[in-house]
Amino acid sequence: MTKGALALLINSTSQNWLPCRWKGRFEAACSDRPVVLPDEGLDPAEVQYAAVWKPLPGALSAFKNLRAIFSLAAGVDALMADRSLPDVPLVRAVIPDLTARMTEYVTLHVLMHHRQEIYLRQSQREKAWQPKYQWPASAVTVGIMGLGTLGADAANILLRLGFRVIGWSRSPRSITGIETFHGTAQMGAFLRRTDILVCLLPLTTETQGILNRDVLASLKRNGPLGAPVLINAGRGGLQNEADILSCLEDGTLGAASLDVFVEEPLPSDSRFWSHPKVMLTPHNAADGDADEISRYVATQITRLESGGALENVVDRVRGY
Amino acid sequence: MTKGALALLINSTSQNWLPCRWKGRFEAACSDRPVVLPDEGLDPAEVQYAAVWKPLPGALSAFKNLRAIFSLAAGVDALMADRSLPDVPLVRAVIPDLTARMTEYVTLHVLMHHRQEIYLRQSQREKAWQPKYQWPASAVTVGIMGLGTLGADAANILLRLGFRVIGWSRSPRSITGIETFHGTAQMGAFLRRTDILVCLLPLTTETQGILNRDVLASLKRNGPLGAPVLINAGRGGLQNEADILSCLEDGTLGAASLDVFVEEPLPSDSRFWSHPKVMLTPHNAADGDADEISRYVATQITRLESGGALENVVDRVRGY
Repeated sequence: MTKGALALLINSTSQNWLPCRWKGRFEAACSDRPVVLPDEGLDPAEVQYAAVWKPLPGALSAFKNLRAIFSLAAGVDALMADRSLPDVPLVRAVIPDLTARMTEYVTLHVLMHHRQEIYLRQSQREKAWQPKYQWPASAVTVGIMGLGTLGADAANILLRLGFRVIGWSRSPRSITGIETFHGTAQMGAFLRRTDILVCLLPLTTETQGILNRDVLASLKRNGPLGAPVLINAGRGGLQNEADILSCLEDGTLGAASLDVFVEEPLPSDSRFWSHPKVMLTPHNAADGDADEISRYVATQITRLESGGALENVVDRVRGY
Repeated sequence: MTKGALALLINSTSQNWLPCRWKGRFEAACSDRPVVLPDEGLDPAEVQYAAVWKPLPGALSAFKNLRAIFSLAAGVDALMADRSLPDVPLVRAVIPDLTARMTEYVTLHVLMHHRQEIYLRQSQREKAWQPKYQWPASAVTVGIMGLGTLGADAANILLRLGFRVIGWSRSPRSITGIETFHGTAQMGAFLRRTDILVCLLPLTTETQGILNRDVLASLKRNGPLGAPVLINAGRGGLQNEADILSCLEDGTLGAASLDVFVEEPLPSDSRFWSHPKVMLTPHNAADGDADEISRYVATQITRLESGGALENVVDRVRGY
């Protein structure tokens, strides 16, 4: 082999994630670099790069000459839980396509709650022509938790639509047009101003279960929507699902859009499925385009081999 | 009376449109000008302005000294049908609040169809975790019919979300970033490129029933959505409703979002109510803020009396 091989560790039987399909894409994107699957009898010593999606814990430890690991998605919480992960740069997927899709999801779900879609679909089922008062977007504050690339892009569109937008993140961030809060000390002030909470946080030991009753009960009361709304497209592990359900039932929350769950696929006995105030999606808020992700990884490898730096490297202490 | 009176001709029993509530708003907006309702024994000769919402035909002909008529909404088709309407400037309501609300509606409904909301809600009801392939916005062409203030604003947001946007209007229009078509001769080319048709046309003798089988059958086939989608937030009179239903049933249309209907409220025996591919709203796409509309009328009167020109005056020949 003339160039360090790229090994693909992809454990999925989903049509979109079949390892054989990714191999073809990476061969197209990486030109003359060998691209190998674990079951193809590769020599572990020749593998310098690995592109991974839900690899089995320990699967990467065989590659002693690894230079970088590429996650094929934005979230790296599952990888970070693997204590045997080689100590080389771990790169998250940050590509415009994935950002655009998440912004679509956030915009769609904010607008569905703002424009009373749950009520309007119910009215249609009941054949009831009963327009209700519709407040303007300028009366609604959307609070975004997580102000990385995804949060900043969604904030931009929501501002353009006329919403008031505020944001919260672990460390200070500055985004034009939105008031930002940070750290544990400012979280209460952020929540008390928020009518629609959009959660795009990474899952770390600090954020595990953060969407709990304490947080949800701190959201703004008596805003135009009546009760506040939760939209979570971050990670299921951020959710205390028993708390979310009880908050929906006692009116602490008016409604919720959930794309992610503690257990996925969502178990068939979950009460979320048939809850009239819940809009559920099957973790499809931001499925990135596979060709674009493959080209992103190839570009990063080329940059590294030309003496450049990798982008979007995970801070192992911070966890994202 | 020191100033020409403003008469309010509002026929509505809807809470948001009660004449007594409008009177208070206009008194606040017009400072010392008399604001009168028809049943208050006003002297018709003193009335120089009329602000109207669904007035009875002929109701304005008594005012011989009228200088301008203000429609309290964007559409003036019902007024234009009144052959006894005095020949003075007729002004449409064009205010940022109304534009913003229509853009919310268009963005919401384009995103609902693009992101397969009908399928996802059905999957939730069936407790089926079955993510389907999701195409990017860049694979979808949204075609907007009607490129006035509303169409141009919606186009701008849809472009920002990554959709391909094209537009059609009666006479030529130029909007940055979107390809535009005009007139009867170019309508076919426009329709053949369109996956999601957004109709924001005014209702005139030329556009009556324009959303018919011929037009719908010309939309793009085999795009990412499968069959094309219709979103109509213009006027019910634009619709040939039997054609729309038969197009939905034979697959010529994949789905529709309808905010307006030939008869409103939509009769309870309409098949639209329970059609699984139809998202129906009770003509609430763009309910303007009443205070803002009142101020808009007051500002126009002040401008006229200071020697300025009225804005958004209807072209009586064109019909909007």
